[in-house]
Amino acid sequence: MTVQTISLNRSHGGLQGVYKHASRETKTDMTISVFVPGHDKDARLPVVYYLSGLTCTHANVTEKGEYRRACAELGLVFVAPDTSPRGAAVPGDPDNAYDFGLGAGFYVDATEPPFAQNYRMWSYVTEELPKLIADNFPIDPSRQSVLGHSMGGHGALTVALRNPSRYRAASALAPIVAPSQVPWGIKALRGYLGDNKRAWRKHDTVALIEDGARFFEFLVDFGGADQFLDEQLRPHLLKAACETANIPLTLRRQEGYDHSYYFISTFMSDHMRWHAARLKV
Amino acid sequence: MTVQTISLNRSHGGLQGVYKHASRETKTDMTISVFVPGHDKDARLPVVYYLSGLTCTHANVTEKGEYRRACAELGLVFVAPDTSPRGAAVPGDPDNAYDFGLGAGFYVDATEPPFAQNYRMWSYVTEELPKLIADNFPIDPSRQSVLGHSMGGHGALTVALRNPSRYRAASALAPIVAPSQVPWGIKALRGYLGDNKRAWRKHDTVALIEDGARFFEFLVDFGGADQFLDEQLRPHLLKAACETANIPLTLRRQEGYDHSYYFISTFMSDHMRWHAARLKV
Repeated sequence: MTVQTISLNRSHGGLQGVYKHASRETKTDMTISVFVPGHDKDARLPVVYYLSGLTCTHANVTEKGEYRRACAELGLVFVAPDTSPRGAAVPGDPDNAYDFGLGAGFYVDATEPPFAQNYRMWSYVTEELPKLIADNFPIDPSRQSVLGHSMGGHGALTVALRNPSRYRAASALAPIVAPSQVPWGIKALRGYLGDNKRAWRKHDTVALIEDGARFFEFLVDFGGADQFLDEQLRPHLLKAACETANIPLTLRRQEGYDHSYYFISTFMSDHMRWHAARLKV
Repeated sequence: MTVQTISLNRSHGGLQGVYKHASRETKTDMTISVFVPGHDKDARLPVVYYLSGLTCTHANVTEKGEYRRACAELGLVFVAPDTSPRGAAVPGDPDNAYDFGLGAGFYVDATEPPFAQNYRMWSYVTEELPKLIADNFPIDPSRQSVLGHSMGGHGALTVALRNPSRYRAASALAPIVAPSQVPWGIKALRGYLGDNKRAWRKHDTVALIEDGARFFEFLVDFGGADQFLDEQLRPHLLKAACETANIPLTLRRQEGYDHSYYFISTFMSDHMRWHAARLKV
């Protein structure tokens, strides 16, 4: 697999790149953002995957996430994929909604027509993308971790729970922890996976834990003034599930913070340090 | 003068606001970005004014400048105005060029029609805006400083040189240092001020220094891979002028960096520390 360079900018002593590649999974071109900090020749760096939230592309966190300084200091490669396939041939939401279809892949492999053909973000993020990154960037594939925001926090937690041997750390900012129980999640899981709720449980953090999935520990921050807290995020459901399952959870309510990149960028360096401590041992 | 709040987001322990006010100088509404770090009740904080470059609004540096962490740590208020008046009644460039008219006020008070009516960014930035900020935010007007990027670097250096008693520090990222000698500057100064080059000299950093203006010292960073370095920026002209005039200049060529916000955000915290050291004594 080869990648085509869209842009490359020196930043914080490293290189912030944006790349395009033809995806086997989505059958479209996919755009990714990769920051590689300054490093010794022949070094192989740990890599953090960042999964974005509804409506975002690779660009939002790249421009507004404020991760580069911390990644440069800590020696972390940072990879941010898009949130859905895109292109003329890709079906979107017939209602043009922000919370389904384009920009809203929900990190599942869709089984429902017309989405099943392209909406394969689960396989893209867990299989194709890590292989692509390992083939093209100076990373150590034995040291990878994942985090995300909102829909991407859902993605990060489910990816980690179903692949505990492949990720050394997982954290989330304002994640959707129980999509089967909230409007955004119900719409997306029904739309991509159909009415069989058994299939939904493999893409629901709380349900996965209830069904026996385990991970080392989680760090989760959420804003006390997040406008989606009660209706869509419901972090107390994650707290209860982790307590029952004895999964260590550092759950922090950040008073006054909302759902925006102002929240994300404030706590990004905390998360990078938390990941680095678990990736660099 | 009152300000209307457009948005207010908790960030890095402070509040990032965007505000609108009716400007006396530009005879339009002007939008400004103001970050106020967490502070003790009744505290009066030093304030840094950031002047943006061509095509920018208040929003670019607000989203991509990565100044909030440093300002929060250092206790600095950060103010970013727009780069020109805007609105249906404001004349733009008849050619719709990016380097003149809307988004390109060049921090002068235009004297040429049809621009003289609204394009009064010099008086806006040096008079109206500081008064507005002092009236509405918890700042100490005796401790203010100024920096900027590209066209805004030009603005920052000229503002400081003509008001050395009102700014305690001034710095620039990739500034236009001699607009009278470069294409962007010649077009702007002729368009706003007419053909009389005597008027241009009051808006040209190198010419101001040649004509006797002085400031304590400057910090200037520029990228070694800046695509505008030789044609538009020419930092060696500032070096020569400062040497002749005995103005201390810390001029740093940052190898590999271009003209973008990836450059700005990399060195922003350096500049904030440099300003804080001069504002907090």
